[in-house]
Amino acid sequence: MPWWKFAADETKFAAEKMAKTNLFETDRMFCDVYGLEPGQSQKPHVHADADKVYYVLEGEGLFEVSHEQRILGPGAVVHAAAGAPHGVTNTGTKRLALLVVMAPHPQFRKI
Amino acid sequence: MPWWKFAADETKFAAEKMAKTNLFETDRMFCDVYGLEPGQSQKPHVHADADKVYYVLEGEGLFEVSHEQRILGPGAVVHAAAGAPHGVTNTGTKRLALLVVMAPHPQFRKI
Repeated sequence: MPWWKFAADETKFAAEKMAKTNLFETDRMFCDVYGLEPGQSQKPHVHADADKVYYVLEGEGLFEVSHEQRILGPGAVVHAAAGAPHGVTNTGTKRLALLVVMAPHPQFRKI
Repeated sequence: MPWWKFAADETKFAAEKMAKTNLFETDRMFCDVYGLEPGQSQKPHVHADADKVYYVLEGEGLFEVSHEQRILGPGAVVHAAAGAPHGVTNTGTKRLALLVVMAPHPQFRKI
């Protein structure tokens, strides 16, 4: 498997719901890209033992961390520490693409 | 401390060597931005127990992971798993800016 990928080449979108595509993963972390069509969300949720970082690749979203909300666009980096409820909604009119890193990987299963 | 930051606002550069700026950190991970002037490097090195992800924000660099090299530009995502020697050199003529996540944090000290 290559050790480099291009975020834009990997980002998928789906009419039904936010699409997640994994780029890299180990038990220490995963790196995904999320594609959200306008109106789609990742509803606020909590990981008790893992941190998440979102980086906005394109588009604009309403981010929520620990019950604070902020609309952010390309170049913004968002950090939700373990225990902090967090989510994002594409409130814009264009597609929203996010690079997402979570550490440690909350569901890693070695095959 | 805010839970969002703009990568471009935080990126610093220094004439002497690559500049690192921390955006967020816990014991589970850190998220930094690295600024490399043309010719500057992060020399190949290994973290036995931590993964690193580089995301190219601007510019172009020669990345090396596990003794393989590749020139990559904006939008590229690089993964160096724990134990894999990795480094990067700004071989271009413009500044190179990288978003960097490492997990777990190899040197976290709670104060």
